[in-house]
Amino acid sequence: MFTEEKIGAFTDVLASKESVPGGGGASALVGAVGAALASMVGNLTVGKKKYAAVEEDVKAVMAQAETLRQRLQQLMDEDAAAFEPLAKAYGIPKDDPDRDAVMERALHTACEPPMEMMRAISKVIELHDELAEKGSVIVRSDVGVGVVCCKAALQGASLNVFINTKSMKDRAHAEALEAEADQLLARYVPLAEDVYARIVEKLR
Amino acid sequence: MFTEEKIGAFTDVLASKESVPGGGGASALVGAVGAALASMVGNLTVGKKKYAAVEEDVKAVMAQAETLRQRLQQLMDEDAAAFEPLAKAYGIPKDDPDRDAVMERALHTACEPPMEMMRAISKVIELHDELAEKGSVIVRSDVGVGVVCCKAALQGASLNVFINTKSMKDRAHAEALEAEADQLLARYVPLAEDVYARIVEKLR
Repeated sequence: MFTEEKIGAFTDVLASKESVPGGGGASALVGAVGAALASMVGNLTVGKKKYAAVEEDVKAVMAQAETLRQRLQQLMDEDAAAFEPLAKAYGIPKDDPDRDAVMERALHTACEPPMEMMRAISKVIELHDELAEKGSVIVRSDVGVGVVCCKAALQGASLNVFINTKSMKDRAHAEALEAEADQLLARYVPLAEDVYARIVEKLR
Repeated sequence: MFTEEKIGAFTDVLASKESVPGGGGASALVGAVGAALASMVGNLTVGKKKYAAVEEDVKAVMAQAETLRQRLQQLMDEDAAAFEPLAKAYGIPKDDPDRDAVMERALHTACEPPMEMMRAISKVIELHDELAEKGSVIVRSDVGVGVVCCKAALQGASLNVFINTKSMKDRAHAEALEAEADQLLARYVPLAEDVYARIVEKLR
């Protein structure tokens, strides 16, 4: 499990020519960092008299942020596992009659973790949207950092969907995945930018 | 050192109410992830006949990416260390005559690591700009992931500059820092967006 690896060792392998972790695992990690910051903002908001009126809402946000962080961390491993069949498929000789079918299945498999990342990260962006209003002002900048991490993670994960759908022969499946990814980008990139802009406005 | 911490343990503490790591350390980590992806793209480009013409350029990019990743990882620790005097200053009773001077020094100290992060991350964005043209097409999506991580890290670090300059009494110093941060944002956020857009265009 990547969560058991030391940060320095992880970035060493990421930087190397090893095929995993790559951009998919990096996106999941950055999304998990964004979710962790949502939890931190929650932890520094609850129990304060000033925020008693929103305490239940913030606790609900925290519960979701924790679940989503764990899910994104699992997805680092799932992404690496899903890349294996694809790496093997690329190794099959081009004249092998089974190559196309194996490659197609591998492409479908490789799309799943980044698609799941996008769904999870979108939810974390919604949490930051809520925390920008309800979180303690002393950790306002951390909402801003968290939401830009999530936006990067969402865009990063989308590239890992598109690079695989592009090569799929099953265009109906490819287009369905691309449509969902595009919908998430169209909705959550602007929301993340709006949250960041509101934080900057309040902070400066 | 944060690099010696396991990823899961790091995000656990980040998510907690502990004052460090916070948004500053998270920004440095995400910048380091962006730098690692630049190294990875370099590592998967050099030694290939197809990219022989740009090999020396890519090697130069890799050397810089490695240095910048190590620097950003150090800055995770420096940011935590620089926050300590500020946390202490907030604990000084408001009627203590020394409070203002101690607080002012602590604010100056706390600004230094995020400012340094911004300088380092800006350089990593320049490296991705070069890799978008010279890196192997098979890792094109990783340039895109790397550059969005760097953009998030740059914006995240800037919030950690602004939250401290806002409270500074020495307005000349505060404005000099804000001007540098604004210049880096004005130059490197659009460059990162341009690199990402070029990658998306090539990929889809």
